[in-house]
Amino acid sequence: MPTADDTRASTPRAPRVTIRAVAEHAGVSRQTVSNAVNAPDRLSPTTLDRVRRSVAALGYRPDRAARALTSRRSGLIGIRVGATAHRTAAHPDRLLHELVAAARPHGYRFLAFDAPYGDDAAEIAAYAELLAAGDVDAVVVADTHPGDARPGWLAARGAAFVAHGRPWGDPDATHPWVDVDGALGVRLAVEHLAERGHRRIGFVGWPADGAGGDARRAAWREAAGALAGPDATAAADDPAAAARAVAPLLAGAGAAPTSLVCASDALALGALAAVADAGAVPGRDVAVTGFDDSDLASLPRPGLTSLRQPIRLVAQTLVEQVLDRLGVDLGRAPAPAGPVPPELVVRASSAAPAPAAVRALSA
Amino acid sequence: MPTADDTRASTPRAPRVTIRAVAEHAGVSRQTVSNAVNAPDRLSPTTLDRVRRSVAALGYRPDRAARALTSRRSGLIGIRVGATAHRTAAHPDRLLHELVAAARPHGYRFLAFDAPYGDDAAEIAAYAELLAAGDVDAVVVADTHPGDARPGWLAARGAAFVAHGRPWGDPDATHPWVDVDGALGVRLAVEHLAERGHRRIGFVGWPADGAGGDARRAAWREAAGALAGPDATAAADDPAAAARAVAPLLAGAGAAPTSLVCASDALALGALAAVADAGAVPGRDVAVTGFDDSDLASLPRPGLTSLRQPIRLVAQTLVEQVLDRLGVDLGRAPAPAGPVPPELVVRASSAAPAPAAVRALSA
Repeated sequence: MPTADDTRASTPRAPRVTIRAVAEHAGVSRQTVSNAVNAPDRLSPTTLDRVRRSVAALGYRPDRAARALTSRRSGLIGIRVGATAHRTAAHPDRLLHELVAAARPHGYRFLAFDAPYGDDAAEIAAYAELLAAGDVDAVVVADTHPGDARPGWLAARGAAFVAHGRPWGDPDATHPWVDVDGALGVRLAVEHLAERGHRRIGFVGWPADGAGGDARRAAWREAAGALAGPDATAAADDPAAAARAVAPLLAGAGAAPTSLVCASDALALGALAAVADAGAVPGRDVAVTGFDDSDLASLPRPGLTSLRQPIRLVAQTLVEQVLDRLGVDLGRAPAPAGPVPPELVVRASSAAPAPAAVRALSA
Repeated sequence: MPTADDTRASTPRAPRVTIRAVAEHAGVSRQTVSNAVNAPDRLSPTTLDRVRRSVAALGYRPDRAARALTSRRSGLIGIRVGATAHRTAAHPDRLLHELVAAARPHGYRFLAFDAPYGDDAAEIAAYAELLAAGDVDAVVVADTHPGDARPGWLAARGAAFVAHGRPWGDPDATHPWVDVDGALGVRLAVEHLAERGHRRIGFVGWPADGAGGDARRAAWREAAGALAGPDATAAADDPAAAARAVAPLLAGAGAAPTSLVCASDALALGALAAVADAGAVPGRDVAVTGFDDSDLASLPRPGLTSLRQPIRLVAQTLVEQVLDRLGVDLGRAPAPAGPVPPELVVRASSAAPAPAAVRALSA
């Protein structure tokens, strides 16, 4: 077991080379050295070169605190970590990783803070503290919802931000947002099942939410059209509830769906369990698709057909949009905000064609 | 779709109340104001009260950059985000959330950076940059491994750090570390299965790694003793490989294990698939246990018996240990470093007693 004393040395530092020392070495003002670090375009190439030689000769490293005082920039973007709705953010750790990777080439990093999930006021209080203290230059607002108070507060304050999630129920919002195109994903799943010969395609979603859940259900109704039976839909919040909600659909005798499009991988797990409980073989007798391409989809065997979010593209777009708001020169236009398409990943849960009886009936 | 111009206002700020204004208002020196913010114990209660009244009257907010210049503290702890080995960190997003929550009461936040997994040199380069620039005061080193170059580098530099993961193969390490007690977890699983009447308990782990995988396998051998058949062990890196590796064990006729302790939930999934492929019912005919209590264990039905890491305790201990190294007054001793016990969560994959035939044989 370690003891507490041995490496307590509390971060000694080498004597710091000051901006004054660099200025004297280069024979320029301290402001010129500061400009060389923070606004090199303000200097002539000759002067910039002279300062840079002195910086190299003395081993000067601009300290973030000093740099921040000069530039009023922390170089940090705030992001809340913690619980999310329905796990729709899917792999929050992977998203954070990709955000960090996308910001690094631009000299920005992420500051992680927490606030209770779904408590806009608490999260706004955290923003206020971070922005007022200059701890972050901008924030990424995650997991938007109807009536979301956060984007309006940030916009009114003139703060730089981008939303992960569209402005549900607020058609007048003008801030940049990035969101997976859930409706497109559901359409891809429906079309995939129709191509496999399925003629009765049900849907398992969340209870009405005025947001992504409703959008996915509406997309199913539209894409499935006549293939969606009148009552071939169930709503649940978790796998166990989904299994209970799906059982009556499967007991619908001749009108039972032969395939189920689900709004998440977790709900799809429940659907798979209900199929097995009904004495059918998931994937062979009743096809099931999920959404998120989480561990739940890819690791169990047989695998679950699902929709994969392009998390790297989402992260890159979020970063470029928010840096553009900060006036950072990206060298090109930022990746366009808006919906990003998910990709259908076909696995055994929908790999087989629809049962012959079903195809014959519907032929 | 949003346009790029409307809220580009690039973070206007209210005129900042300076430390000088507070000093003049309170009739004290600027150093005294600084002390009131950063070292209040250096001031008399009367002076401290006077400064605090001026701070409140003027609405002064100490700017992080200014504070950092004064205190040489960034108030940030660095942590790498990204891929991990075998997902043993289990729920990296939940760990980060708990770390952030544990640090907040002490005025510390986390800076997320990335580096390629398993590349010590790259991660050390990231530490060097962060520490030299004063971007972080300390780091949490995650996912330790045999021959790990990171703790030694940080210790030699005198940097404040704590490791999530023990110093594998380095008995002389003196830095604080926190790690789940994987061997204890395996013992708990073996004892649980023995109590259920199992008399042939196999093990599914990772290939030899000189670290946590080996420790879990050794713990199984020791705890299972005579209940571990001579060859009742398999090694694999993912669920599909685990299923292939387990199949021959189950074909071992009378000597086949009636239960399998697995080093992770992902490996346990493979074991469950192999049991089903062998025509047996997982949980009823052959019990299976996992490790991590991930979504893979808790969401599918029937659920997987698994071992849950006390992530909140792990995070709290990591934070308190590293803040103690930084000389932060916690008001008490930090939570003790070292191994932390996991908790057995029993679900249907091991809920049934061992098959009667097996119990009779072993009676």
